[in-house]
Amino acid sequence: MPPGSLGRILEIGRQLAAIQRTDRPVGKPALVAVFAADHGIARAGVSAYPAEVTGQMLANFAAGGAAINVLARTAGADLLVADFGVAHRPTALCESPSLRIQPIRDGTSSFHDRPAMSREEAYLAVERGLRLGEEFLEAGRYRVIALGEMGIGNSTTAAALIAALTGCSAEAVVGRGTGLDEAGLKRKLTVLRDALELHRVRATGVWDWLECVGGFEILGLAGLAIAAARGRALVVLDGLISTAAGLVATRLCPTCADYFLAAHMSPEPGHRVALEALKLRPLLDLGLRLGEGSGSAIALPMIAAAADILRDMATFDSAGVSEPPSCPPSELRP
Amino acid sequence: MPPGSLGRILEIGRQLAAIQRTDRPVGKPALVAVFAADHGIARAGVSAYPAEVTGQMLANFAAGGAAINVLARTAGADLLVADFGVAHRPTALCESPSLRIQPIRDGTSSFHDRPAMSREEAYLAVERGLRLGEEFLEAGRYRVIALGEMGIGNSTTAAALIAALTGCSAEAVVGRGTGLDEAGLKRKLTVLRDALELHRVRATGVWDWLECVGGFEILGLAGLAIAAARGRALVVLDGLISTAAGLVATRLCPTCADYFLAAHMSPEPGHRVALEALKLRPLLDLGLRLGEGSGSAIALPMIAAAADILRDMATFDSAGVSEPPSCPPSELRP
Repeated sequence: MPPGSLGRILEIGRQLAAIQRTDRPVGKPALVAVFAADHGIARAGVSAYPAEVTGQMLANFAAGGAAINVLARTAGADLLVADFGVAHRPTALCESPSLRIQPIRDGTSSFHDRPAMSREEAYLAVERGLRLGEEFLEAGRYRVIALGEMGIGNSTTAAALIAALTGCSAEAVVGRGTGLDEAGLKRKLTVLRDALELHRVRATGVWDWLECVGGFEILGLAGLAIAAARGRALVVLDGLISTAAGLVATRLCPTCADYFLAAHMSPEPGHRVALEALKLRPLLDLGLRLGEGSGSAIALPMIAAAADILRDMATFDSAGVSEPPSCPPSELRP
Repeated sequence: MPPGSLGRILEIGRQLAAIQRTDRPVGKPALVAVFAADHGIARAGVSAYPAEVTGQMLANFAAGGAAINVLARTAGADLLVADFGVAHRPTALCESPSLRIQPIRDGTSSFHDRPAMSREEAYLAVERGLRLGEEFLEAGRYRVIALGEMGIGNSTTAAALIAALTGCSAEAVVGRGTGLDEAGLKRKLTVLRDALELHRVRATGVWDWLECVGGFEILGLAGLAIAAARGRALVVLDGLISTAAGLVATRLCPTCADYFLAAHMSPEPGHRVALEALKLRPLLDLGLRLGEGSGSAIALPMIAAAADILRDMATFDSAGVSEPPSCPPSELRP
């Protein structure tokens, strides 16, 4: 085709080709992995919604009624929902191949005044994500893993992690999450600023910050991202929280960044900071701020199309289409 | 869901709901319609590719090897290819339900020094597009019609139409098309400027400009867009050329603009001018400049997802999810 004429679609095709080490890559099958957990920091009033919603949404995922159920189905992707530490777990939930109840603990401690978890819990959360990734990659032979999350308060946790790992300020990463009002936003900023100040006294390395801030689902997603990269799957990051998980993954294992694709740009300021740190340019800009993996699921058909184009399209040569009389000079420059 | 949390996806859902007059809209089935024709203006050296490529690509579409064949298939959409006036038509082409050979004439005259077509040919091109749209809408019950095109030289024709219909300058709409070099771009600008000056002497109304500039596939697509709007289908515009057709359609029938969705932002300057005139904000920005309907086909799964979300997703109420304690003040403002 004319050079560069499919823009970012071709870039995705090239990334898939490099990951799969073939010039005939595939963009399917895909798995959307939604990890859920609660955050002690939610008690500091940093979310527009009560903490009960995490468990209620877990039930909604299990019943197939959430946005991510619809979006995964529309994209032809499998869905894995994992409970990494939901506080108000609905009693009627049954474990199934697509729903895993494997809490580290029923929510983190509030990192406003103490560490979110122990060092052992941090190790365990990352390891469980990694093992779950390995298990699903082996069983489903997934070529694409789309990350998603649910956890009331987790935009505060993600913002704190991004600030800590990139060295930027609380102001640069704070946002409205799922619809915080002006007073709530001010409160969230104060909480973030206080917490970062508190933990900066002793936190130096990545694991210190994971222990101090959390959360369980973010660490689990970081483990999953590492497993996916090791299994040569493309890792699709969604918004603020899953991109924070991606950032954590690259601090634990720098080479996995090559396996990442940023699905979209969320309106959360911290998301932009994390994407810049990861040197990723988001594919879509749709004003999405739902989470759940909604953005990464919406990007899946474009990823499938990118692989299909490389694999199934005729070249000008094979189709007998004339090339330009001479290569335009601009194409000859390096 | 939290207000506005699915951003533009929900906007598309609302547009489909309004078009279909239901709160349970559908985003399928979809038809990708690629109209092809040749342009006399190509003889003025305004394209990087020879005019033979239009016919060669028509054969490639018929053989299923082009990007749009792959992208329509990946999106689960039907494909209609129509020849509205290809100059170098391959001899082996067989008419089929998905390939229509219905040329107005074998390419327009060069609007560099004369009108591209007669008034009767202009009427005929729009009418054939309209009738083809009616026929396919009736047979396929399409809810979404994605526009695409092929025609060496047609970015010059589209730019001229956009400049003429919006009253802006040749400089504001000229672009590299499919990979024109610096010298080619200068030539194209001179040709555009001369042609606009020549025809401005007598062209006053929309039909004057359609007759003076052309081209057959653009006028056909304008007719198709009008038929689609009348048939309550969403019309997905692709890049510069199909958006020029959309602009023509709204000048012939202003209400059809409500049925339009701009799939993406192409790097062609004239595309931005046409989108602004149509008050459309493109959904994607992927650096696509292939044409064929590639951008509109890539947008189809997102349109299907938007309908599925409105139709199949549980509400917070039905899923037993808690609402925020009180509606945030920002949501109460009009």
